[in-house]
Amino acid sequence: MNRKLRMGMIGGGRNAFIGAVHRVAANMDGLIEVVCGALSTDPENALHSGRSLFLPEERIYLTYEEMLRKERQLPADQRMDFVTIVTPNFAHFEPAMMALENGFHVVSEKPLTLTLEEALQLQRKIQKTGLRLMLTHTYSGYPMVKEARSMVRAGKLGEIRKVIVEYPQGWLSRLVYKGGNPQAAWRADPERSGKSGCMADIGTHAAHLAEYVTGLRITELCAQLSVMTTGNSLDDDGNVLLKFNNGATGVLLASQVATGEENALKIRVYGQKGGIEWFQQEPNSLLVKWADSFMQTVRAGTRYTGLLSEDALHNCRTPGGHPEGYLEAFANLYRNFAGMLSAEMDGRNPSDQMLDFPSISDGVRGMAFIECVLASNASDEKWTKFTC
Amino acid sequence: MNRKLRMGMIGGGRNAFIGAVHRVAANMDGLIEVVCGALSTDPENALHSGRSLFLPEERIYLTYEEMLRKERQLPADQRMDFVTIVTPNFAHFEPAMMALENGFHVVSEKPLTLTLEEALQLQRKIQKTGLRLMLTHTYSGYPMVKEARSMVRAGKLGEIRKVIVEYPQGWLSRLVYKGGNPQAAWRADPERSGKSGCMADIGTHAAHLAEYVTGLRITELCAQLSVMTTGNSLDDDGNVLLKFNNGATGVLLASQVATGEENALKIRVYGQKGGIEWFQQEPNSLLVKWADSFMQTVRAGTRYTGLLSEDALHNCRTPGGHPEGYLEAFANLYRNFAGMLSAEMDGRNPSDQMLDFPSISDGVRGMAFIECVLASNASDEKWTKFTC
Amino acid sequence: MNRKLRMGMIGGGRNAFIGAVHRVAANMDGLIEVVCGALSTDPENALHSGRSLFLPEERIYLTYEEMLRKERQLPADQRMDFVTIVTPNFAHFEPAMMALENGFHVVSEKPLTLTLEEALQLQRKIQKTGLRLMLTHTYSGYPMVKEARSMVRAGKLGEIRKVIVEYPQGWLSRLVYKGGNPQAAWRADPERSGKSGCMADIGTHAAHLAEYVTGLRITELCAQLSVMTTGNSLDDDGNVLLKFNNGATGVLLASQVATGEENALKIRVYGQKGGIEWFQQEPNSLLVKWADSFMQTVRAGTRYTGLLSEDALHNCRTPGGHPEGYLEAFANLYRNFAGMLSAEMDGRNPSDQMLDFPSISDGVRGMAFIECVLASNASDEKWTKFTC
Amino acid sequence: MNRKLRMGMIGGGRNAFIGAVHRVAANMDGLIEVVCGALSTDPENALHSGRSLFLPEERIYLTYEEMLRKERQLPADQRMDFVTIVTPNFAHFEPAMMALENGFHVVSEKPLTLTLEEALQLQRKIQKTGLRLMLTHTYSGYPMVKEARSMVRAGKLGEIRKVIVEYPQGWLSRLVYKGGNPQAAWRADPERSGKSGCMADIGTHAAHLAEYVTGLRITELCAQLSVMTTGNSLDDDGNVLLKFNNGATGVLLASQVATGEENALKIRVYGQKGGIEWFQQEPNSLLVKWADSFMQTVRAGTRYTGLLSEDALHNCRTPGGHPEGYLEAFANLYRNFAGMLSAEMDGRNPSDQMLDFPSISDGVRGMAFIECVLASNASDEKWTKFTC
Repeated sequence: MNRKLRMGMIGGGRNAFIGAVHRVAANMDGLIEVVCGALSTDPENALHSGRSLFLPEERIYLTYEEMLRKERQLPADQRMDFVTIVTPNFAHFEPAMMALENGFHVVSEKPLTLTLEEALQLQRKIQKTGLRLMLTHTYSGYPMVKEARSMVRAGKLGEIRKVIVEYPQGWLSRLVYKGGNPQAAWRADPERSGKSGCMADIGTHAAHLAEYVTGLRITELCAQLSVMTTGNSLDDDGNVLLKFNNGATGVLLASQVATGEENALKIRVYGQKGGIEWFQQEPNSLLVKWADSFMQTVRAGTRYTGLLSEDALHNCRTPGGHPEGYLEAFANLYRNFAGMLSAEMDGRNPSDQMLDFPSISDGVRGMAFIECVLASNASDEKWTKFTC
Repeated sequence: MNRKLRMGMIGGGRNAFIGAVHRVAANMDGLIEVVCGALSTDPENALHSGRSLFLPEERIYLTYEEMLRKERQLPADQRMDFVTIVTPNFAHFEPAMMALENGFHVVSEKPLTLTLEEALQLQRKIQKTGLRLMLTHTYSGYPMVKEARSMVRAGKLGEIRKVIVEYPQGWLSRLVYKGGNPQAAWRADPERSGKSGCMADIGTHAAHLAEYVTGLRITELCAQLSVMTTGNSLDDDGNVLLKFNNGATGVLLASQVATGEENALKIRVYGQKGGIEWFQQEPNSLLVKWADSFMQTVRAGTRYTGLLSEDALHNCRTPGGHPEGYLEAFANLYRNFAGMLSAEMDGRNPSDQMLDFPSISDGVRGMAFIECVLASNASDEKWTKFTC
Repeated sequence: MNRKLRMGMIGGGRNAFIGAVHRVAANMDGLIEVVCGALSTDPENALHSGRSLFLPEERIYLTYEEMLRKERQLPADQRMDFVTIVTPNFAHFEPAMMALENGFHVVSEKPLTLTLEEALQLQRKIQKTGLRLMLTHTYSGYPMVKEARSMVRAGKLGEIRKVIVEYPQGWLSRLVYKGGNPQAAWRADPERSGKSGCMADIGTHAAHLAEYVTGLRITELCAQLSVMTTGNSLDDDGNVLLKFNNGATGVLLASQVATGEENALKIRVYGQKGGIEWFQQEPNSLLVKWADSFMQTVRAGTRYTGLLSEDALHNCRTPGGHPEGYLEAFANLYRNFAGMLSAEMDGRNPSDQMLDFPSISDGVRGMAFIECVLASNASDEKWTKFTC
Repeated sequence: MNRKLRMGMIGGGRNAFIGAVHRVAANMDGLIEVVCGALSTDPENALHSGRSLFLPEERIYLTYEEMLRKERQLPADQRMDFVTIVTPNFAHFEPAMMALENGFHVVSEKPLTLTLEEALQLQRKIQKTGLRLMLTHTYSGYPMVKEARSMVRAGKLGEIRKVIVEYPQGWLSRLVYKGGNPQAAWRADPERSGKSGCMADIGTHAAHLAEYVTGLRITELCAQLSVMTTGNSLDDDGNVLLKFNNGATGVLLASQVATGEENALKIRVYGQKGGIEWFQQEPNSLLVKWADSFMQTVRAGTRYTGLLSEDALHNCRTPGGHPEGYLEAFANLYRNFAGMLSAEMDGRNPSDQMLDFPSISDGVRGMAFIECVLASNASDEKWTKFTC
């Protein structure tokens, strides 16, 4: 590949938090350039946002339909390679489907769709087209998450027995939807956000992380959802008991009313021989607790060859003590995705590390998780099977 | 009161962990002296242990029955004032009942008894005799736990919405009962330990702490218990969803197979305006997280007058930065209990701070909690009512 | 400015740590593009490195002289706007001077030059040309460092009395210069590195940070340098007592033989009313310690309007709890520098925030610091004046 | 020994912070009883304080001279065994000397005396009488400090190169001497406190800890003392460069104007192979940083046999995760001292662990340290020899 990959954006106009994050992540490693966008449904915002990204006027589109159609007609050496969808939840499915139909690979924010059924439709389309979809479960991009997964895989912790994954945030502990917070506004509206609030927004991250790190699958769960802040229309808090396919048990907590918490995703996994603990707000440390010796603090860093797994090393940029963070974890998804696309476009086989990004199957499983949690919450029976 | 209070001990011979802890706690503040003991059912151990405590030979008893009988016959100015019971769980009820029948106040290790019914019998006896019983829920003795409770009471956190209390330990992640660990041996045996393992041993501490700090009561729960280590005969791990009487929800985790964890009791309480976090292994800090400003680290210390509540200050001995720990928390229970007994023996009214120790009602509630958790675990229904 | 700024690189070929960091930092915010480079003195490496950056073949230069000459001849709408110099220390001065002579702004790694005299020559050239130079004292780019500076400026800490700045690293605790570590090789060689090792490499960062945060100036110092690892040819450890222009005192520690430390830069500043502590390895927290109330943990985050200073907010990209790190701090330097250049090229006045990057005067002062420390180390007198 | 040791107290009446600490430390392990006291020079306070300790009226003395004389005349089976001196600094020497002259062992607060000469007089008296003196350098009583010392001794860190010991407190950052703080009042007065403030009060602890942990001796130093708070009459802040007898260098910081700090004693020691870090406010963890692998967190706890040194294990009371603190560290001094006295009174040889308490030689060296620091501070030469 002797050029940067070309990316188009749907959504992500000014003041959109996650769109800016995607651009930083895509820019960071110099492998991708943003070439076009349908950045807002508001024409003025779309235009203004496109110019601030230095897009050529003719590639600042006013609708995603226009963008997908026109980009398709461009010559191959100009046309975008993939599209990134960063619109509110309700506007993920249709652009994704249309992109696939027009031959573009897709990067999508999560949750993938509003319903499991939509997710399955996308999966079928992908199977048919052979195109690629990446779902931005950012937290799996951190090097110390990779290291935890490698340790579990290598059997260093022994048989896994218990998983505790928690995701407390506090930003909805007061009613913010009525105010000017644009991230809150659409999340409050079931039509635009889907049937679940907190559990879809961050519970799915937690569930993905638990399965990603352990390599296990949740088989049954028992959920209790709440609306704690008066005026919130969807669940803003939930607690879930978990059973895994190897007999391990677990707990998943997610809350947006944990007052004063920022983005406190944490996972702990305990096996027969050892346990790990990873906290997203101090992401460069992985605590490893042993049955027979004292705790070690495993650290991210490019120079820890021989100490870290290949998977972790591949996802580091700096030596130990030069902290990488959320944007680098995000960029790791893009870097792996770009490496995979470049390899496939060049006719090479992508490495395992390049194939390590959340894909359509994670998107489908996330939607199934949301539906299972909602079913369990509505049920008087203790356990609800999680099949997918 | 112009003398130290006189304490007798049942159990607590050499190599008994918790007996030594009780003695340090009772000694520390110079308010109590150990005057007699029935320290072991093994006569040689009893004798040896008594001598190592410098007890007079005639007050080194071989059985608790002998001790209670003979102490009763001593003149009032020699007789012990109260008895501390630190035997394995199955040997709490009978000595406690006999002590009450002979007019002695009681300090008992938890869980109070093997069954709720026994606990209720003790409660009735106490109501009849007017004697006092203290149950050593140690963790409620920490000054920063008092501070957390004071903050909740004063409404500083607003209406409480969510409680997360967790108690991971790792010491049973390998089968230790067959080995020489004397603390493990009786805990493995349902006849001596009761119907629950982990949940009775440490889950009750967690439940007590949650109710103590919040002032709320658990009304329903959904429990899932496991035996993770092959060879363990009782639950060594459990997860419980909680509902509280004000509509708050919560999660209680307890585990003795969380490999590599020491004694990692932690509580988080979130209200509308703020949240608190307290971790037993760094007990002199209370993290306070606000909706509208940055987190504060409230610290224990005698000189923080004006910053800490009276309840917290009363339970500190040193200025900030001179860490107090587990033994001081334990000593706080004894100091308050001794203050209360001294006041009552002098005909004074004990202060609120002196009355702040876990009592018979906490013991009864703890036994009810165990029974409710076991019932829920055995049930297919999601929620089991917790009444008591 | 309706285009990205165009950057050329001198140095930074493959395996060069800091060159890659500069590119990530420059790329991240989509304001700068790398358009040309003289990436290595080894032609094959230069070519290969240029291609991996997707540079056009004709702008992959083999020497910096060639690059500066040829770029100057390009039309204004293609020519690079500024050059970034990431070569070893000895090769900073000449390219920088030649760039200025050819009308290019300069970004330079630190230390600026090998001698104070060279630094002063650059300063005079800059004064004459009106061009801009940025020195990458990265650590001043962190938002919580900006916040600390703002607090000091606003008088929140009261009169400053004591500064403790320390920079322990461990990577030279074993002799690595003889091995294959390319970062170590030139640092070992006084001809290429300069007269000081540790103190020039990281001590200057610490001194800059101390003056940047406090707004004070070091006026006298007392230094003791050591070569601890046999085979190291320059100082690998040093301790310095400091006096500041307001009467405050301080200590500066720098070490590359603090075995097991990564990049543990920390600063503490104590004033009459409060103190701050900031640690580079957990850079999103600023501990603020008050005389009259409990410690607060101030946190970086775009949404903390009203709680953080404008200077801190301007240098954040993500909401609290989405950690930013070293690369973002580095990118803040570039973003401010780019904002300043764009404004000036558009004829606008740059904002205070855009002008907030380390400049030629910081570079001169850094060289003076190195010379003063070396003089003090060689002296038997306690205090050496620091004038510049 | 079939009885508790008998202790008398000089000083330590009500409101005396350190006297109460000594009593808790002496009481804790049930090996010592307080039998008499000259608790205050104010007769009413003395009487009241004695009664609150339940002392018999006839052993509540009004002066230390009376106490020493009368106790000496008591029969051997009643007479106190040793005296603890907890008066302000100026009142250490005379009671200690008189106690020794009357055949009593001594426990003394630090600094031992007002001058080095007095300390040497005590040393000569002790050599002549064969009596024992313990100086309460509390911080050397912590188990993790013992562990650090054991690691250095066993060569696990390799040759020691650098020592950083710091002791920041903030309580004098405002003038408190004029107010009601009784701990501050006498410390402000050179007649009662000695020629140094901060450096004598806490700098000596830091110096002792550095030498205790490393087994090295300071041979030269370069000191800079300040009076930062207007109205303080003695140094309230100081920075000292250190040279050790093996070529290691170091820095010692002590401050009582580090606003917002509690009692933040920390030591870091770096050797060729590894480094350790210990922080008094979280005393149950010892961070061990390795050249070749990730950091370990060594933890205090009775059950860590095989993992901890004998010296550390001997000074623990509880299993890991049941935090011990300042009072237990203090009690370790008393427990070792009591074990040593009991052994010697029984004609047994005390174990190495029992002999591990700060003694007269530490007291002499502490006084020499103070005098050396004052001499260096007054000198324009960089280095002052530390001989003693």
